[in-house]
Amino acid sequence: MAQPRVGLIGATGETGGSILKGLIEDGGFDIIALARPESLSKRANVTLKDKGIQMRALDLEGPQEAIVAALKDIDILISAIAGSQQLAQIPLAKAAKVARIKRFVPCAFATPMPVGVHQSRDQKEEIFNLTKRLHLPYTIIDVGWWYQFSFPRLPSGKIDYVVGFPNETIPGDGNVPTALTDLRDVGKYVARVIKDERTLNKTAFVYNELWTQNKIHDLLEKLSGEKIPRKHTPAEEYERKVDAVIAELETNPKDPVLRFKKVYNQYCLSVGIRAENTPEYAQYLGYLDGKSLYPDVNFTSYENYMKEVVDGKAVGIYDEMRPLLFQALKEEH
Amino acid sequence: MAQPRVGLIGATGETGGSILKGLIEDGGFDIIALARPESLSKRANVTLKDKGIQMRALDLEGPQEAIVAALKDIDILISAIAGSQQLAQIPLAKAAKVARIKRFVPCAFATPMPVGVHQSRDQKEEIFNLTKRLHLPYTIIDVGWWYQFSFPRLPSGKIDYVVGFPNETIPGDGNVPTALTDLRDVGKYVARVIKDERTLNKTAFVYNELWTQNKIHDLLEKLSGEKIPRKHTPAEEYERKVDAVIAELETNPKDPVLRFKKVYNQYCLSVGIRAENTPEYAQYLGYLDGKSLYPDVNFTSYENYMKEVVDGKAVGIYDEMRPLLFQALKEEH
Repeated sequence: MAQPRVGLIGATGETGGSILKGLIEDGGFDIIALARPESLSKRANVTLKDKGIQMRALDLEGPQEAIVAALKDIDILISAIAGSQQLAQIPLAKAAKVARIKRFVPCAFATPMPVGVHQSRDQKEEIFNLTKRLHLPYTIIDVGWWYQFSFPRLPSGKIDYVVGFPNETIPGDGNVPTALTDLRDVGKYVARVIKDERTLNKTAFVYNELWTQNKIHDLLEKLSGEKIPRKHTPAEEYERKVDAVIAELETNPKDPVLRFKKVYNQYCLSVGIRAENTPEYAQYLGYLDGKSLYPDVNFTSYENYMKEVVDGKAVGIYDEMRPLLFQALKEEH
Repeated sequence: MAQPRVGLIGATGETGGSILKGLIEDGGFDIIALARPESLSKRANVTLKDKGIQMRALDLEGPQEAIVAALKDIDILISAIAGSQQLAQIPLAKAAKVARIKRFVPCAFATPMPVGVHQSRDQKEEIFNLTKRLHLPYTIIDVGWWYQFSFPRLPSGKIDYVVGFPNETIPGDGNVPTALTDLRDVGKYVARVIKDERTLNKTAFVYNELWTQNKIHDLLEKLSGEKIPRKHTPAEEYERKVDAVIAELETNPKDPVLRFKKVYNQYCLSVGIRAENTPEYAQYLGYLDGKSLYPDVNFTSYENYMKEVVDGKAVGIYDEMRPLLFQALKEEH
């Protein structure tokens, strides 16, 4: 039997890059990276092509027939589209139905969350709902919070080279567990999930390890020998900040720092206060549990990852976003 | 151990009445019927009280503390609230969280359907989403389409006494299966579901039998000896009618006949064309399958129910709605 042909959107992004690597390492897939026509000549895509990845142009703003043609002969379609482009999946899902895609994996790849908390998540939910109206076979995969965004700075500044997300204050008492995954392991899980009949038309939650902010701080202090100041922020403070930033966004709806602040505080509430990034809450929402499905995945332990961080060997992500994150961080803390 | 205490909203309605009967026959529950303060003196509620049902006043427009007080000591809260009152469950769900309800059964009790097809269903979904934001333990129960609404008139008019829903035209080719349940059996399933740990924080689809419109017509012809004219309506015709009625509703948003027509045509598309009222589609949406959960429920067969209908022994439902339904039916057919 021929290998299943996987179409991957977003192969040059952080999540898509991990998925591409996972699919290649699995070895069981015929992979096609789908990219915007005008992006095919960009360096990142040329690099993929040079590595032997089949490339296809996909213009989600073009006519449906062209999108359907770009999906020809693809069995499994994975969308790791940019966070800001979620609604571009509307024509994608409609074309996937026409193209008889056997499994559509719409963009999720984050923390489990109910509807009505977070705009970006709600946009993803719009795509899930459209998928279901289309009766399109699907799998939704959430992967928890990334190792890469999970830890605070050190007072010495020695790990600033890799800090990607503000974790300078600890939500609530700091004892709420959060499911963490090394971004580099995301693709391993995706490769397992998409060839698994048990996950067809299901939502799956995969992750590496459960940690609390207090334990993360303890670990980083132990590995670095530095003492990290611990400032706890109560739930009400995050709620107040969400309300304030929503009010500010009314006058400056496009301001990227404000938008990031909103997402940041909403995530702190969901993940750090309400414990929504946990296997228990995911199960409550109806997810299949990744630990039960794939107990044998060989992933990087959080402790080993944090050793890389402290040893100056970790690799930063979202480099182009970091100045924005740091500005927001400075204003929030 | 004390019996679980069940609070039931809508006990004098069609669905709630069946649930009340099912709970009583089960014998394993301490039942409290919750009704609006001004309704407690109405005949239907006085009848319940005379039968020994405990009654409590519940004012969903009142202050939260009063709603919480009305839910005191209730373990399982079932809402079979009127179709037009779905959003009154917002204060109910919030109070249920404060009252530490162990299992909230928000109003569903219809056919499985994706988000974005049908306003009433979408309102129910709003309540499901709120429930999940509250982290409130829940079970959602859909019961398919009622026997009582499943069949067409006979040319002789002899079963007009009990026809409750227009089925004079057959959606599509008439071979699409639809899951049917005798309204009188709904409560039997609910009694099973609410004491079942497997259904906690899950969505369950329970139903009696699968029938197609062609087979329903065949059966009714066989039982009555009459020939029923068969007019098939294609999908495009329903879509055109939905669009037309949505346009008409813009000028007359409250018109009850228009509103019913919209729902009717949307249901015909979902149930009769897209086969969404089936165990396969329910499973696709993530429902647990009632036939696997409760293979031993003793229900009325569709054939026996239809014999009652033809023999003049069936009981009509929604009597106060029938003139409206018949007016809409006349205009649609």
